[in-house]
Amino acid sequence: MTTSSLVEKKHKVTVVGSGNWGCTIAKIVAENCAENPDVFEKEVQMWVYEENITLPRTSPYYDEKIGETPQKLTHIINTHHENVKYLPGIKLPANLVANPSVQDAVKDSTILIFNLPHQFIDKACRDLTGHILPFARGISCIKGVNVTDDGIHLFSETIGKGLNIYCGALSGANLASEIAAEKWSETTIAYDPPPMDASRTPSPRSGSPVNGVSSNEDLYHRDASGKKSSVKLTPVPADYSPIDHQTFKTLFHRPYFHVRTVSDVAGVSLSGALKNVVALAAGFVEGRGWGDNAKAAIMRVGLLEMVKFGKTFFSTADRATFTDESAGVADLITSCCGGRNFRCAKMAVQEGRTVKEIEARELNGQMLQGTSTAMEVHSFLKTRGLEAEYPLFTAVAGILEGKHSVDEIPDLVSDN
Amino acid sequence: MTTSSLVEKKHKVTVVGSGNWGCTIAKIVAENCAENPDVFEKEVQMWVYEENITLPRTSPYYDEKIGETPQKLTHIINTHHENVKYLPGIKLPANLVANPSVQDAVKDSTILIFNLPHQFIDKACRDLTGHILPFARGISCIKGVNVTDDGIHLFSETIGKGLNIYCGALSGANLASEIAAEKWSETTIAYDPPPMDASRTPSPRSGSPVNGVSSNEDLYHRDASGKKSSVKLTPVPADYSPIDHQTFKTLFHRPYFHVRTVSDVAGVSLSGALKNVVALAAGFVEGRGWGDNAKAAIMRVGLLEMVKFGKTFFSTADRATFTDESAGVADLITSCCGGRNFRCAKMAVQEGRTVKEIEARELNGQMLQGTSTAMEVHSFLKTRGLEAEYPLFTAVAGILEGKHSVDEIPDLVSDN
Repeated sequence: MTTSSLVEKKHKVTVVGSGNWGCTIAKIVAENCAENPDVFEKEVQMWVYEENITLPRTSPYYDEKIGETPQKLTHIINTHHENVKYLPGIKLPANLVANPSVQDAVKDSTILIFNLPHQFIDKACRDLTGHILPFARGISCIKGVNVTDDGIHLFSETIGKGLNIYCGALSGANLASEIAAEKWSETTIAYDPPPMDASRTPSPRSGSPVNGVSSNEDLYHRDASGKKSSVKLTPVPADYSPIDHQTFKTLFHRPYFHVRTVSDVAGVSLSGALKNVVALAAGFVEGRGWGDNAKAAIMRVGLLEMVKFGKTFFSTADRATFTDESAGVADLITSCCGGRNFRCAKMAVQEGRTVKEIEARELNGQMLQGTSTAMEVHSFLKTRGLEAEYPLFTAVAGILEGKHSVDEIPDLVSDN
Repeated sequence: MTTSSLVEKKHKVTVVGSGNWGCTIAKIVAENCAENPDVFEKEVQMWVYEENITLPRTSPYYDEKIGETPQKLTHIINTHHENVKYLPGIKLPANLVANPSVQDAVKDSTILIFNLPHQFIDKACRDLTGHILPFARGISCIKGVNVTDDGIHLFSETIGKGLNIYCGALSGANLASEIAAEKWSETTIAYDPPPMDASRTPSPRSGSPVNGVSSNEDLYHRDASGKKSSVKLTPVPADYSPIDHQTFKTLFHRPYFHVRTVSDVAGVSLSGALKNVVALAAGFVEGRGWGDNAKAAIMRVGLLEMVKFGKTFFSTADRATFTDESAGVADLITSCCGGRNFRCAKMAVQEGRTVKEIEARELNGQMLQGTSTAMEVHSFLKTRGLEAEYPLFTAVAGILEGKHSVDEIPDLVSDN
């Protein structure tokens, strides 16, 4: 633990979640906190859902004295610096501390990184309420959005509302296993700070006394559709350096993990959800044996529908997020070349089964994100009479429902 | 042969070139000419470089009476409707006529489609001079551009200048074998008609008497950089329907070959050349074992450098051509996933050899387009002191020259 002797307080970072992707991101931020002691506390907390683990004899950490007595996962991580269950074989930095108490893990943290399955967001927010710094800022690494007939809710906004804080998003062509092995990747961080933070951005890192709040209005978060939300934000105190794009670049950028920052949280979040719908279509045409031209056509048409969807339903969405950023076109490419939505859709067509059947057989009880997103987006568009405007999204839903065949795709999308 | 009894004359179409891609395109346009007798002459001419072919006993067209006596390729095509040498196994339409005389093939044709290896363009133009209709219009299906230290020359413009006609370009994610088998593909046709043609575009198909020439200036072709060229064009006579985007959509669009038309000839042509440089980089990182994240990152960075190059050196280039069209992002994807530049670069890294060594071993005397384009583009940029602005293009040239290693790519492109 470092104790700061500077006027300026350092940012403390907590990662909420410790699965395969959670540990990968925790490794990255812990490496950067250790290398940037002027900005961050060295110690990074990581909340771990506690489990008892029995280390087998073949484990390098097997201890004759303990034998097959179960040990706590947090104890194993803090002793051996490896999450043997969810990210085996990857050494975690020694300054990353596993903590079984989420309330204790977030104590005094100014930066909260959310990286847990989306179904646990609400519970995490309930558990954290009253335990976080009121001026903390968040980054959600959780891919996808929540689409209902009423509207589209970004996970970053669910977290923001749940905790009364501002929360951005991180997404990209980011297969966790490759990044954990330090193979080169890129990512996109979307962060659109409220005016109180934004107006501090140009000021130097040395503790400027302004907090940038120009009016009471600035304290209210505006969501990605531009609406003022009920979230009344607390400014980051002036004895901390601002939390801005540069902060997140310093926290996440590694030689093997290149960061680009944007302001378009909606575009980054939508890309991470809609690419799965396109990946199903890519799997369908590859399963049908149509080759590389057809798959590239699907990606092109899908990318344009993603742009159109973003621009239509989010005033702040920027087409460049989709066409230029890792969270957009690059993530779409990886998902359409090897993701599990792609693979299951391809198998379904090759074997003449439904995607549901393949999902049940291949995914061990897990669900494909693409199928639920496809049906939610379809219902959302249908409610608004806009199905014809998104022929590829509509075709995917139709194929999943058994209304269309894969052979109809070229005709269905021929206006694109 | 149809003889028109209408006031309006029909367009006659000739395909100059009959290789694998030439025959595939000829098949498409012949199918459409047969289906659109109100716009086109039914018979489509295809110039075939004459060869003597011996049909083996295993050929379905083997004839005991002829035995192993060599036959002319044009005779085989016109008898059996198959190019047994360059597109075996694909039935060609009966209204496609192979012609060994290029001068005779283009006689009275208003639409000339160029689809031959780029090194034969100059000779073809010399052979055709004085034999084409002065008001003919062309489409070049030849991928790539000619880059020298002095400038960038589009093949469509080389043809246009060589023949004193206007010539557009067709390019896309178009592996010929897949299209010949009628697997679904998309393509992009770029055609930016000179004012005399453009001003006719809104007029109805019925022979309008105007030819749309508002001033003598309109008769001069402007190249993709906006400069007036020495080519003084001849207007399409008013007894023909205009030759515009709709004409080319009717001529090329098939249920299995979807056409989108744009005006950006430079963007379409540059994409077809520069994607090969990016494909080399994609091959390098995959050969290095870096996985899908890294390959997607290369494509993203490469796409942005393609846009930047286009916008910098061609005033008419449109970023959407690169990010939205089949000739742009889709062709980039197919080339980075399975094209031969990609495959040779991957093998080179895997085996610790130079790309030149792999090229010599694998390509049977043929040359990779990516390597020459990479070095030409590099020299072009170096002459202008702009290497640092295009770090990926520069890295590829550096790796080909042995100055850089693949491991340096992430550092070299880290500003992207």
